[in-house]
Amino acid sequence: MPRIDGTRLISDLKRLAEFGRYETGVDRPTYSAVDLASRHWLAEKYAEAGLDPVIDGIGNVFGRAKQATRRLLIGSHSETQPKGGWLDGALGVVYALELARAFAADSELAGLGIDCVAWADEEGHYGNMLGSRSFTGRLDEDEIDAAHNREGEALRDALARAGFADRPRIAVDPVRYLGYLEAHIEQGDTLDSTGRRIGIVEGIVGIWNWNVAFTGQQNHAGTTQMARRKDAGVAMVRLATQIHDRFAQLAGPRTVWTIGRMLLDPNAPSIVPGRAEMLVQVRDLDVAILTRLRDALLELAAASDRAGPCRCTVEEKSRTEARPMDEKFEAAIEAAAERHVPGLHMRMPSGAGHDAQVISHKLRSGMMFIPSLKGISHHWSEDTREEDIVLGAQVFADAAAAILKAG
Amino acid sequence: MPRIDGTRLISDLKRLAEFGRYETGVDRPTYSAVDLASRHWLAEKYAEAGLDPVIDGIGNVFGRAKQATRRLLIGSHSETQPKGGWLDGALGVVYALELARAFAADSELAGLGIDCVAWADEEGHYGNMLGSRSFTGRLDEDEIDAAHNREGEALRDALARAGFADRPRIAVDPVRYLGYLEAHIEQGDTLDSTGRRIGIVEGIVGIWNWNVAFTGQQNHAGTTQMARRKDAGVAMVRLATQIHDRFAQLAGPRTVWTIGRMLLDPNAPSIVPGRAEMLVQVRDLDVAILTRLRDALLELAAASDRAGPCRCTVEEKSRTEARPMDEKFEAAIEAAAERHVPGLHMRMPSGAGHDAQVISHKLRSGMMFIPSLKGISHHWSEDTREEDIVLGAQVFADAAAAILKAG
Repeated sequence: MPRIDGTRLISDLKRLAEFGRYETGVDRPTYSAVDLASRHWLAEKYAEAGLDPVIDGIGNVFGRAKQATRRLLIGSHSETQPKGGWLDGALGVVYALELARAFAADSELAGLGIDCVAWADEEGHYGNMLGSRSFTGRLDEDEIDAAHNREGEALRDALARAGFADRPRIAVDPVRYLGYLEAHIEQGDTLDSTGRRIGIVEGIVGIWNWNVAFTGQQNHAGTTQMARRKDAGVAMVRLATQIHDRFAQLAGPRTVWTIGRMLLDPNAPSIVPGRAEMLVQVRDLDVAILTRLRDALLELAAASDRAGPCRCTVEEKSRTEARPMDEKFEAAIEAAAERHVPGLHMRMPSGAGHDAQVISHKLRSGMMFIPSLKGISHHWSEDTREEDIVLGAQVFADAAAAILKAG
Repeated sequence: MPRIDGTRLISDLKRLAEFGRYETGVDRPTYSAVDLASRHWLAEKYAEAGLDPVIDGIGNVFGRAKQATRRLLIGSHSETQPKGGWLDGALGVVYALELARAFAADSELAGLGIDCVAWADEEGHYGNMLGSRSFTGRLDEDEIDAAHNREGEALRDALARAGFADRPRIAVDPVRYLGYLEAHIEQGDTLDSTGRRIGIVEGIVGIWNWNVAFTGQQNHAGTTQMARRKDAGVAMVRLATQIHDRFAQLAGPRTVWTIGRMLLDPNAPSIVPGRAEMLVQVRDLDVAILTRLRDALLELAAASDRAGPCRCTVEEKSRTEARPMDEKFEAAIEAAAERHVPGLHMRMPSGAGHDAQVISHKLRSGMMFIPSLKGISHHWSEDTREEDIVLGAQVFADAAAAILKAG
C-alpha cells in the first residue's frame, strides 16, 4: 500500500497557500499573478515527482505519469475564492501530488500511474468550471470569446497575459484513465459536527436556479393610496414567504433551497417599487424532488400573477444535472475509510459543485471529503485539523491503489 | 379681486422649464449651473414685478413687496428632482410671481403685499428642505458643514461656487407676514381620477421611518442543511409579509406604508444571507394611527427576534411630525374654489413633504393642490392641463386676497 508522507504533504499545502496569502486564508483569483505563479510552481513540483508537466491553453496544469499501464487522473482546482480558504481546491491538488509521489516510491505499485491535474477557474472568476469543461469538450471558443471577470477583463486577454493563448487545450483521452478522483474539504459541517473523519460522496447535487420577476408600477410613497398601488416588493415578499412554506412541506431530507439574491427597483425608501426580482435556487441529488419543487414554484408564481396587481414571471436561469459518482469508487473509498477509522465515515451528497461533476460525463468519477471545521467555506477562516488532512490523504491513497489494482 | 394673466403665467412656467430641460421635464438639481441661472432669472423677474430681489446665503430667492401694510409670503422650491417634472416646485414659485404682479396691478389691493420666495433644495440634493429650514432657524452651521450631495460635493463648496457663501441667511420676521401660502401639483391622482380641479390641503402627513435589521449567519447555499441555517433573508420576507397584513388591519383610510428599500448581504445566489435590512415607512396625518402602526411593528419584530433563529432589531431612522394647515387659510381657499368650480374641489392631506410643513412652525400656513395627470410625480413625464394651471392661479389669488383683506 502507498505510504503518505504527512510532513511533506502539509509543507506543500502551506507553501501553496503562500501564493496570495490573506489572513489565515488565500486570495488567489484565476489568472492573477499569484495564481499563475502557483501554477508554474505546481508544474515544477510535478516534474520533481517524476511526472511530465504541462500547462494547457486554458491554464489546466497536468502532471502525467510516464510508464504506467493503468492510470487514474486525480486533482482539483488550484485558484481560490476572493479572500477564500487555504484548502478549498488546494487540498485535492496537493493530495494528487502526494499520491503520485507515494505510488512512485512503492515498487509494489509499479505500473499503476497517477496523473495529477490542477483545474483552472472552477471558482468561476471568468466562467463556470472552465478547466474541467475545456478538458471534457464542454467549453467552446465562443464562450471563451465572451467571458470576462468581474473587473471586466476579457478571458482572452487574461489567457494572453498568462502566456497560454497559443497553447492547445488538452482534451480527455478516455482510454488513458480508469477514472477520476477528487478530494475536497466538505464545506459543510456534517462531518465536523458528528465527529466523522471521511465522507464518501454519493453524487453531486443538481442545482436549479430560477429568476422570479415582478412588475408593478413605480410611484410616490406618499401620494399613492394603498388601494391604487402595484407594489412589486409586496408581491415579492408574499411569494417568497409562500415558497419557503411550501418547499418545507415538499422537500426531501437533504434538499436545500435558497433565495440569496433579491432586488427592488429603484430600492428607495420613499418610492413604491415598480419592479422586483429574486433568485430561487434548489439543490438535491434526486431529480424527482427538484421537479416537485419546480412545479410548486411555477404554481405559486402563476397564482401570484393571476391574483395581481403585479405581474409575476419565472425564468429558468440555469440547471445543472445531479451527477452520481461511480459506485465501485465509492466502495473503494469506503473500504479504505473503514480500515483506518472504523465507523467514523459516512456516505453523503455534495451540496456544492465540483469539477468531478463535469469530469463524470467522460470518466468514472469518485469524490472523498474530509471535515472542515464548523463547515466554514468560501471565507479565509476555513480550516481543517492537520491530523484529518493526513488521514484523508492516506485513505485516498489506499482507495486509489485498490481501484488501480482491481483495474 | 386680482386678475391672473394666464398667458403670462404659462409663458413664465415654460421659460423656467428651459433651465435644465430634459425630455418634457426638467433636470435641475440644487446649485447646479442651470439651477443657479434660474435663481438669477427669478430675481430679475421679481425686480421686473416691482419687488426687491435678494438671494440669501443658502440660495433662497426672495422678492419683497415694497410699501405694503399687510403681507403674505408665497412660494415653493425652484430646483427639481433628477429628471423630474416641470411643475413640481416651479408651479408654486411662478404662481407667487404672478400673484405679486396681479396684486400690484390692482389699485383695490393697494397696501396688500405678496412677498415671493423660491426655496433652495426642498428636493434634498444636499440636505433636507435646506431653504425653508434655514429661513425658520432649523438649520445649523454644523449641518451645513457636514452636508454633501450624491456626487460627494460638499454643501459649503457648492455655496462658494454659487457665490452665496458670504451672504447672510435670511431668517423669518414673523411680524412681517400674515402667513405663508404654497401651491403645488398634487403628485397623486386623487384629483385627476375624480375630476376635481382644486385640493385644499388639511395638513402634511407625518412620515415615520424605521430600519429593521436581521442578523443570521452567512453560509454556503449548497452545504448548509436547512435545519442549521440562520437565513436573514427568510426572516425578512416573513416579517415583511406580516407587516403588510397587520398594517392593513390597523391603518386609517388614508394611511400609506411602504417597504421601498430592502438589502440582503451579500445578495449572491449561492450564499445564505447573513444579514438583511429593510426600511419601513408609514405616513398619516393622525399621530394616533402612526403610533398604532409603530407599536405593531415593534411587536412583530420582537416576536420575530424571540422566535429566532435570526436576531431582529428596529431602529427609528427619522420621524417628521404631521403638520396641520391653518383652518382660516383652508376656508379661504375652499371658498375661492367653490366660487370658480362649485363642487369640484376637496379637502385632502398631503402625503408628500413640502416646505409649508417647515414654515408652519413659524407662520400660519396654507397649501393648495391642482391635479397632476395620472398622479405621475418625480418623473419627467409629470404634467397638468394648462386650464387647470390657470384656474388654480386664479383660485389661489382670490384666496390670498381674501386672507389679506380679512387681515
